[in-house]
Amino acid sequence: MATAADIAAMRRAIALAARGLGSTSPNPVVGCVVTDPAGRIVGEGCHLRAGGPHAEVHALRAAGDRARGGTAYVTLEPCDHTGRTGPCTRALADAGIRRVVYAVPDPTPQAAGGSATLRAAGIRTESGLLAAEAAEGNTAWLTAVRAGRPYVLWKYAATLDGRIAAADRTSRWITSPEARADVHRLRAEADAVVIGSGTLAADDPQLAVRGIEGAVQPLRVVLDTRAAIRPAARILDGAAPTLVAVGEDAGIPEVPGAEFIRLPPAEDGGPGLSVRALLAELYGRGVRSVLLEGGPTLAGAFVAAGAVDRVVGYLAPVLLGAGPAALGGAGIGTIADALRLDMTETVRIGPDLRITAVPTAVSAVSAAAADAVAAAPAPEPALKER
Amino acid sequence: MATAADIAAMRRAIALAARGLGSTSPNPVVGCVVTDPAGRIVGEGCHLRAGGPHAEVHALRAAGDRARGGTAYVTLEPCDHTGRTGPCTRALADAGIRRVVYAVPDPTPQAAGGSATLRAAGIRTESGLLAAEAAEGNTAWLTAVRAGRPYVLWKYAATLDGRIAAADRTSRWITSPEARADVHRLRAEADAVVIGSGTLAADDPQLAVRGIEGAVQPLRVVLDTRAAIRPAARILDGAAPTLVAVGEDAGIPEVPGAEFIRLPPAEDGGPGLSVRALLAELYGRGVRSVLLEGGPTLAGAFVAAGAVDRVVGYLAPVLLGAGPAALGGAGIGTIADALRLDMTETVRIGPDLRITAVPTAVSAVSAAAADAVAAAPAPEPALKER
Repeated sequence: MATAADIAAMRRAIALAARGLGSTSPNPVVGCVVTDPAGRIVGEGCHLRAGGPHAEVHALRAAGDRARGGTAYVTLEPCDHTGRTGPCTRALADAGIRRVVYAVPDPTPQAAGGSATLRAAGIRTESGLLAAEAAEGNTAWLTAVRAGRPYVLWKYAATLDGRIAAADRTSRWITSPEARADVHRLRAEADAVVIGSGTLAADDPQLAVRGIEGAVQPLRVVLDTRAAIRPAARILDGAAPTLVAVGEDAGIPEVPGAEFIRLPPAEDGGPGLSVRALLAELYGRGVRSVLLEGGPTLAGAFVAAGAVDRVVGYLAPVLLGAGPAALGGAGIGTIADALRLDMTETVRIGPDLRITAVPTAVSAVSAAAADAVAAAPAPEPALKER
Repeated sequence: MATAADIAAMRRAIALAARGLGSTSPNPVVGCVVTDPAGRIVGEGCHLRAGGPHAEVHALRAAGDRARGGTAYVTLEPCDHTGRTGPCTRALADAGIRRVVYAVPDPTPQAAGGSATLRAAGIRTESGLLAAEAAEGNTAWLTAVRAGRPYVLWKYAATLDGRIAAADRTSRWITSPEARADVHRLRAEADAVVIGSGTLAADDPQLAVRGIEGAVQPLRVVLDTRAAIRPAARILDGAAPTLVAVGEDAGIPEVPGAEFIRLPPAEDGGPGLSVRALLAELYGRGVRSVLLEGGPTLAGAFVAAGAVDRVVGYLAPVLLGAGPAALGGAGIGTIADALRLDMTETVRIGPDLRITAVPTAVSAVSAAAADAVAAAPAPEPALKER
């Protein structure tokens, strides 16, 4: 039975885990709190970057001898796996921990089994405490390792009547400085930011994270079927790595500052590149979360491919009555085929409104997060090494 | 100086006033609370319909002799005017009221002057208590008598990407039963509901208030330039009065169940009828508030005419990627000309979100409601007779 102290410690561990968002891929975010036998918090830690120490190791180091006979609260089942670092199960046993409480079982075959190893070492283990909350904090990674492709968040900014620009394509600024600053937070939490050639040509965005100290720059990705990118594009400024995906028959232009790859065409015969192939390529590079920042065509291609896991819309109290819509070409012809979502959050951001929604099927899974995680079918093998 | 009891009594009067929304035009809504000399509430009243007793009369009747030496709290300056009922100033004096506290001065020349008459009768008067709150409750009427045209609320229901229907024009149902029920409340509070011939043809709506006990049915209005309405239209079912506005050169069809009027064409050379002429016609008929329920073209014409005072959008967590947008043809070509608004409220209605917004200039007036009311220029003469 979880006590109030158990819940408080796990909630703290979940908060610590969030510090790693955007920098741990291909690993999950993990937080850990260690208490001494009297229940006092003596160590805290989180996983900050792949190849660096796991949350448990940070927390045990901080605790030192005071961990002996104590409890470790971890947001994810401790790993039993030697990768770039040793298994956490051994570190916990060596530190003299008597009890391990973890929120979410590890769904990856390489790291799983930690719980059994701990029990074999005489350590009491409990799982499921605040599992839904902890899973929510790890949504991107859990979704990615289950689906074998990166988690995709589509972000758009539009007027109340759904326009992303006026009839003459002007769009500076529809949303407020506050909303635009909020987007940098989304970028900082993503492993990659993806746009299409339309946005590249229209806005020439830099797509780097600005104004967030210590943020890891995401990989900047352009879907540029015809290889139309120009050397002066801001996305090639070296502020972050850049990947340009072009069509199979496109020439690779002489452009410094980017890596080029070729992708097959869209499966549905559309004008663009295969969303599935792009996501597979990114997953192979360790990308677990993608922020889709492109225009209506790119977003439509992702919706049509069933590859949008979350929608974040910034709605400005503005009316235009003409101009491009936020979403186009999603392959939906009639109301019965509409993509239905559940709104999970609405927040005022300055004068604007931020709406977060997830496809209905996804949110049904999320509602039973702990069960879903425990009962998930064997996930795609992943590069996970926490 | 207002006491806590004064504030509580006025707040109660404001709540009473709201009961009249949708049934008092061309009069305002008014609430009144009468207290005895000890401060106990001994009478309450509100204005319920034009030609019926004013709020003060209802409250004084309920109080009887206990009003003598007491205070009357009224949301609007008591009238000094004999119309279908006698002046409230005399009723208050006859009842022996010693002190009158009112929230908002009456801006209409016919009814104004009540405060001076009361003082001449030896009654102490105070104005401005909760003026902004009381003005908010009377927004439609105050806006209408100042502008000399009905207050216009534009309501739309759309997907997150701003679509009101799918590519094949199917739209049942984008929003939830809860959101659709909420629209009936808006209808019940409006004097008239306006659509265009496009919505008439596409949806054949009835536009009557359903599910709200005691609601007064609004006047149903169709802008039907070419007189294309058919006798079987549900809007002609007799459940509420119906007005059909046709073009100057259109024939009046042989259709029972509606009154027909002719209107000049739109001032801007657009395809429809003059919004200004329609609103003048409706104002002359005592309509003080209009609910605009038409499609994108009609809404665009009202936006272009500067005749939208409030926007209520029901946003469903749905994505379509194709289909008609909520607003079209508003005459806005570039971002600098966008209609900017302030969101005044966001509320979850079942699975959907209701966003209320008012044009930025309007909300600036509203923020200083009391001052604005007091300092308003001499308003257009109105049919007011409360």
